[in-house]
Amino acid sequence: MTTGPHAAGPARRTVLAAGGGLALGAAVTGGAVALTRDGDTAAPVADSGAAVPFHGAHQAGIATAVQDRLHFAAFDVTTDDREKLVRLLKEWTRAAERMAAGREVGDGAHGGLPEAPPDDTGEALGLKPSRLTLTLGFGPSLFDGRFGLKDRRPGALVDLPRFPGDNLDPARSGGDLCVQACADDPQVAVHAIRSLARIGFGTVSVRWSQLGFGKTSSTTPDAQTPRNLFGFKDGTRNVSGDDSAGLDKHVWVGAKDATGGGAWMAGGSYLVARRIRMNVETWDRTSLAEQEDVFGRDKKEGAAVGKAKEHDEPFLKALKPDSHVRLAHPDSNGGATLLRRGYSFTDGTDGLGRLDAGLFFLAYQRDVRSGFVPVQTALARSDALNEYIQHVGSAVFAVPPGVRDADDWWGRGLFS
Amino acid sequence: MTTGPHAAGPARRTVLAAGGGLALGAAVTGGAVALTRDGDTAAPVADSGAAVPFHGAHQAGIATAVQDRLHFAAFDVTTDDREKLVRLLKEWTRAAERMAAGREVGDGAHGGLPEAPPDDTGEALGLKPSRLTLTLGFGPSLFDGRFGLKDRRPGALVDLPRFPGDNLDPARSGGDLCVQACADDPQVAVHAIRSLARIGFGTVSVRWSQLGFGKTSSTTPDAQTPRNLFGFKDGTRNVSGDDSAGLDKHVWVGAKDATGGGAWMAGGSYLVARRIRMNVETWDRTSLAEQEDVFGRDKKEGAAVGKAKEHDEPFLKALKPDSHVRLAHPDSNGGATLLRRGYSFTDGTDGLGRLDAGLFFLAYQRDVRSGFVPVQTALARSDALNEYIQHVGSAVFAVPPGVRDADDWWGRGLFS
Ligand code: HEM
Ligand code: HEM
Repeated sequence: MTTGPHAAGPARRTVLAAGGGLALGAAVTGGAVALTRDGDTAAPVADSGAAVPFHGAHQAGIATAVQDRLHFAAFDVTTDDREKLVRLLKEWTRAAERMAAGREVGDGAHGGLPEAPPDDTGEALGLKPSRLTLTLGFGPSLFDGRFGLKDRRPGALVDLPRFPGDNLDPARSGGDLCVQACADDPQVAVHAIRSLARIGFGTVSVRWSQLGFGKTSSTTPDAQTPRNLFGFKDGTRNVSGDDSAGLDKHVWVGAKDATGGGAWMAGGSYLVARRIRMNVETWDRTSLAEQEDVFGRDKKEGAAVGKAKEHDEPFLKALKPDSHVRLAHPDSNGGATLLRRGYSFTDGTDGLGRLDAGLFFLAYQRDVRSGFVPVQTALARSDALNEYIQHVGSAVFAVPPGVRDADDWWGRGLFS
Repeated sequence: MTTGPHAAGPARRTVLAAGGGLALGAAVTGGAVALTRDGDTAAPVADSGAAVPFHGAHQAGIATAVQDRLHFAAFDVTTDDREKLVRLLKEWTRAAERMAAGREVGDGAHGGLPEAPPDDTGEALGLKPSRLTLTLGFGPSLFDGRFGLKDRRPGALVDLPRFPGDNLDPARSGGDLCVQACADDPQVAVHAIRSLARIGFGTVSVRWSQLGFGKTSSTTPDAQTPRNLFGFKDGTRNVSGDDSAGLDKHVWVGAKDATGGGAWMAGGSYLVARRIRMNVETWDRTSLAEQEDVFGRDKKEGAAVGKAKEHDEPFLKALKPDSHVRLAHPDSNGGATLLRRGYSFTDGTDGLGRLDAGLFFLAYQRDVRSGFVPVQTALARSDALNEYIQHVGSAVFAVPPGVRDADDWWGRGLFS
């Protein structure tokens, strides 16, 4: 399998006609990126203006080199009309294809007519594709019977157990559908979510959404590892987007996993999203030694205890038993491995004079039961970090395989 | 007066010692940017990694070419000890100087001692200065008598009247102090606010804060005008950061204005901040013709009605009487002119399935009475835009002149 290159896309076309004029013919540009990507493992190149191919065996936005910004939305389906939902998924797919290529929503003809609302809301006109990826997921509640999908729910899409310390806000948890929009320009990510919400009006409504201002993980070993709001490098040990063996083992659902009612998930993945509040004020009064003990890595370099370099393999026995890295490491959890792709957030203040800031944790895995659940069970029980964080939102989604081509659509396997 | 160039700064030094080692000697780097800027009118260059000089006749962050991202915080002073407040302002000044130069908070010596909390929280280590500016303001409530400042309140710092349509949330309004942090990297802006909040612990607490993900105004005529969440170019007609005559006329408080108790404001400016919710869902169902009528400009090019190009002067009589541009134009308001420097925000959802998104409006002016008040009075009364927006937060601040040099500090004039 070869990896499709990141094709450089054009600037978003500006086909809205000037004051009442007619729209220009439109279907040409953007075609450069309509390459079928076979096998995904998006190249770890990060030309921040480029387009990431939308089509492929896997959805983009998982193995793709992590973009700088995030807008994430969970939706509730407000109809129980299955056909209407299917129509929406098809429409969303076509809009997502266009936006990922840096094109406007709609074919542009509409937008030129002054009597009609413009097809595209316009705020991303003139902006580059900015490596926009749109990744769709289905939540457990979608399989509750409204849409005749009860027997299609994959075993790996479990309801998460209640973990010790959880303080979950239902208004920031769950959702029938989710869309993860990642881009190097936040305006492009926000535009994409807003456009999908707009298209979905009458069929879905936004349940909750989350803006992530800075990535906290990297899936490209050569890039500088970003720092989280506790000041530590985050994402040092992660599944790399160009390690196709690792992806097949830990992230992509294999044909053998996806059996019976869940066969439609082959090539997909499972996403766990957790809003984790970080008490930065308390953390900031903690000594450097304590901070380094909590993680089991040093703050400056990011090296594990007793090691010199960030990417030296940790020697787990040298780390305190309750350190985050020791507890989260695959060797402590029967090999459980996650592809982490989280973002820092700050959402104003908490009413007590403190910043409401933290980590919007996103992790992809082949099976939630052997991925997030064992790792978080260990962390929730013993992690030294728990003194400084609190999980306040939670959701889990089955992320179907990629959209193969211009005839395919998000969720076709599930609804066929 | 000459304008100091934007000196390219070094990457934020990483002086945190590795796992318990000692800190390196530190006071050298970053010095390249400690140039005194005389007269401000920051160069409209936007090398997004560079440092903006902190010192000067005016505070940076006003005439400075608008950076991509914002983190804004309003603080309440939680002590009535004037000396403690003065100490804080001095500490803040020194920290701001360092951060603007891309350096860590503190002298670095502390951070190397594992028994002490690190001086710097660390999440901006390794990041470039990113054109960070920190701009301080004093709110009307600071002059309420607690600090013996009653007779130092400038006449131009009025309490804003209640405008028709205002639906202000007290929890998003007011504040004794404010800091506007702008940078091309949001992590740098968030780090700066958080660091100041941390230094202020026990003296101030964050009353409210606002993240802005994308600029909606430009103060550099040659740059591409950004689009707001209604899809229109915003900031076309604005005071330019390199038009020193315009700045002197409309933005900087002159020596003649600043008399009596308010003499300390010479060289300063006044800031009005308004959180304006934009009902994007309603807007998106409006025809292109209606949208263009509302502003009096076309959507694609941004040209005023009857004109061809964005920067052609509007002919006001060709615009509908209730159009935003006609009502807001200086010619309709006795010459009232604002330097607008706002940012788009999106803060999750509103509980009704809609995105809580809008404009965090920031405007600088020489006098609030002849700046924001007349313009907003006209807009609140008649603006066609009012059908689609709502003002939900409000604050006004006296922004003192710049910090001259390494012995000067924010507010020295006020407290001397
Ligand atoms: C605010 C909460 C959290 C913070 C600040 C945080 C931070 C970190 C940091 C600094 C590292 C070390 C660098 C690295 O290898 O990436 C790390 C590693 C890791 N974390 Fe977290 N983390 C958080 C929550 C979680 C959660 C909820 C999980 C999963 C349930 C998790 C799973 C992991 C894993 C699997 C590793 C890699 C361990 C290894 O293989 O060495 N983290 N985290
Ligand atoms: C969400 C609310 C608002 C939106 C979406 C908005 C949008 C716009 C747009 C698109 C323009 C035309 C382009 C330009 O010249 O910059 C404009 C111009 C302007 N706006 Fe607003 N604006 C809003 C609120 C306000 C407020 C509250 C004020 C002041 C009280 C204001 C003052 C102005 C001024 C002074 C101009 C320039 C008029 C001229 O000189 O031609 N705007 N605005």
